Amino acid sequence: MLKIDFKNMFSAAVGDEGGLTTTDIAAIDKSTAAAHEKLQEWRRTQDAIFYDIVSDTRILEGIPEAAKEISSRFDEFVVLGIGGSALGLRCASAALLPPYWNLRSKEQRGGKPRLFVCDNIDPETFAGLLDLVDIKRTCFAVISKSGTTTETASQFLVVLERLKRTVGEKWREHLVIITDPERGELRPMVRAEKLRSFAIPPKLGGRFSVLSAVGLLPAACAGMDIEGLVAGARSMASRCAAASLETNPAYQIGAYHHYLDTRKRKAISVMIPYSDALMLASDWYSQLWAESLGKQGHGQTPVKALGSTDQHSQVQLYMEGPKDKIFTFVGVESFRIDDKATRVSGADKAFSYIEGKDLGTILRAEQHATTEALARAGRPSLTVTFPTIDAHHLGEFFMLYETATAYAGALYGINPFDQPGVEMGKKLTKEILTKG
Amino acid sequence: MLKIDFKNMFSAAVGDEGGLTTTDIAAIDKSTAAAHEKLQEWRRTQDAIFYDIVSDTRILEGIPEAAKEISSRFDEFVVLGIGGSALGLRCASAALLPPYWNLRSKEQRGGKPRLFVCDNIDPETFAGLLDLVDIKRTCFAVISKSGTTTETASQFLVVLERLKRTVGEKWREHLVIITDPERGELRPMVRAEKLRSFAIPPKLGGRFSVLSAVGLLPAACAGMDIEGLVAGARSMASRCAAASLETNPAYQIGAYHHYLDTRKRKAISVMIPYSDALMLASDWYSQLWAESLGKQGHGQTPVKALGSTDQHSQVQLYMEGPKDKIFTFVGVESFRIDDKATRVSGADKAFSYIEGKDLGTILRAEQHATTEALARAGRPSLTVTFPTIDAHHLGEFFMLYETATAYAGALYGINPFDQPGVEMGKKLTKEILTKG
Repeated sequence: MLKIDFKNMFSAAVGDEGGLTTTDIAAIDKSTAAAHEKLQEWRRTQDAIFYDIVSDTRILEGIPEAAKEISSRFDEFVVLGIGGSALGLRCASAALLPPYWNLRSKEQRGGKPRLFVCDNIDPETFAGLLDLVDIKRTCFAVISKSGTTTETASQFLVVLERLKRTVGEKWREHLVIITDPERGELRPMVRAEKLRSFAIPPKLGGRFSVLSAVGLLPAACAGMDIEGLVAGARSMASRCAAASLETNPAYQIGAYHHYLDTRKRKAISVMIPYSDALMLASDWYSQLWAESLGKQGHGQTPVKALGSTDQHSQVQLYMEGPKDKIFTFVGVESFRIDDKATRVSGADKAFSYIEGKDLGTILRAEQHATTEALARAGRPSLTVTFPTIDAHHLGEFFMLYETATAYAGALYGINPFDQPGVEMGKKLTKEILTKG
Repeated sequence: MLKIDFKNMFSAAVGDEGGLTTTDIAAIDKSTAAAHEKLQEWRRTQDAIFYDIVSDTRILEGIPEAAKEISSRFDEFVVLGIGGSALGLRCASAALLPPYWNLRSKEQRGGKPRLFVCDNIDPETFAGLLDLVDIKRTCFAVISKSGTTTETASQFLVVLERLKRTVGEKWREHLVIITDPERGELRPMVRAEKLRSFAIPPKLGGRFSVLSAVGLLPAACAGMDIEGLVAGARSMASRCAAASLETNPAYQIGAYHHYLDTRKRKAISVMIPYSDALMLASDWYSQLWAESLGKQGHGQTPVKALGSTDQHSQVQLYMEGPKDKIFTFVGVESFRIDDKATRVSGADKAFSYIEGKDLGTILRAEQHATTEALARAGRPSLTVTFPTIDAHHLGEFFMLYETATAYAGALYGINPFDQPGVEMGKKLTKEILTKG
């Protein structure tokens, strides 16, 4: 079970300026009942369907079978998708696949395909990828609920032409389409061409979609434990069900961030995993937090960092810059590797403090030291600890932050499930391309 | 030559609340002479030595020869370094090596080694790397000016033990040490063991060091054009030499950011490259900006983004969230690939606006649309355009931002070359490890 420690959020640890006092907590708790009720309303209207899909026994329907078929037939699995259609999967892959997955031999990958997530339309990278993979051995997953996403449509059309040119009539077998069950631009093609496909629940937004076929089908193709992801999410959903600030960690995260942002000028939320495998957890969180809450003049700006690396690039600012930040440390208790493999030996006097220590121990020491240094400098933080990195704990993490985000939306009094601010850019893009 | 466009910084484009008026510009320009003089003083004291090293004809001394020897003998080049010892190189590699470098065959790499930059001590990744590479065919570069960096020392000691165990007495041949020319923990070992080594100018800080042996030796080993990098930096140094706000782009960048931060509450600086190859330019910039300027309660918080990917994760916040941001778009005029390779064809009616367009054109349209949408929403930005991505333009970019950062430091009235705020964390780390 994930451990969540709020100690350094409170004034006892970080002082009254940056920390929450008992008066603050009492003020915060006055909103709990109404915000909880708002969440229940969003569940009834299916806006918060992210919370309930993990209890649906059909969530994995057809996925293991399709994944087995795909991974036995193909050496490369390429995802075409952007934003919410890509970030959850990228985060899960970094966390759950062994490091350097795509550099391993097929045997070292247990026969599973390499995994490429194309979440940009950079022409150099995209052409580089199409040159790198053997198209005849590649399955492409096209992920877009509406099917109207310009980037994904562009990638798909380039791939489709290449596929038809390379494998002829067999092009259909190289595709899996993940899209709206009924509507959108992709579903008619799925029907007409009888393509493999999976459905995205119509009211499920991209940034809340990692625990649907969007994340789960590709994850399964690469051999990740999708049952574990869903089970972890389900257990966190129970843990975050109560209308209680005291016992509900998602409500605490949402409420403390909202209060410190609106009442104590903490406009920035920094997430710092101390683990390469969890690095993209902060990218995933950043999308969720920014796109859900950044509206009507509200919204903390999420910042991604990585420990201990960014101690050497950002911590100077965090320690001595403006007091406008809340920090979230994400730590790991036990790494998935024998400590002996990275044990330091032969240190001379200057480094006697690391002699006999393994890199995991040193990394955790860096994390605890930075947490403590920030607390002493009056900067509030919370710490989420993975006992170890696995699918269950990652599933918990996803559900924890999805619930916290929705709850914060209720407190800000905004709709955390829409994104009206991106329409102007989409309109202008079409105008430029139509003219150009 | 890099193009730098400030149009959307001004009130004519973004309104008076977020943009600079003629009154603002006049106020800003009053500081030009004094800040320029401060920079000249820092050059005399060698604090700003970053500016002058590129005119030193000895800057490349010995590097091409060593790189040639190393890259002909080894298949893998692994850098052990963190923060400033890694970020510039990581940025240059992403920009200047073809995509998927480490997935290419040796032949496709022109015989050059794969390149791994280990800038963290995550035990899973580090052990994974040591399993992945063939130690007998690997050269390790150890980069630390003081030699006292805990992370780098830990990595080095783990590697040293592994090297000695695997190649015996030949371990020395597998190392290159980049460190202070006289002092520090590494230099005595270099002397005693007669190791390959390069010197870091003693007053050159890590975050300003990419154009010294720190960045140039590894870059040369992977076959990057280091002469181009230095020549580009040199030409930008000339372009940024004048004590004139009007003609000096580094002074404009530094001054506009400082003014909008301190006078118009733009506490956040977002950099968004529209190019995968330039993605890490914003990581490199973030370190430079944060660690140099984040002190005495000052300092904008840099935020890294990537276009068009983050249009689907951050732009909602940028458009409708708090008006606390300045944006820097980094664009590319001409990608290093035939447009035909990524041309869209076969689009149906819904996508007629992309029919016949290549991904580069679509990506640029996304960039221009987002720039315009933000301007219409009253959010100021500037745009740096690479005519194409190459070593010369990247060298220009490095020098532009190093100079802008130093200049901003002068305007904030702080020392942009130190980092006192990281000492507490280092002290606590040692305490924890000594006790533990």
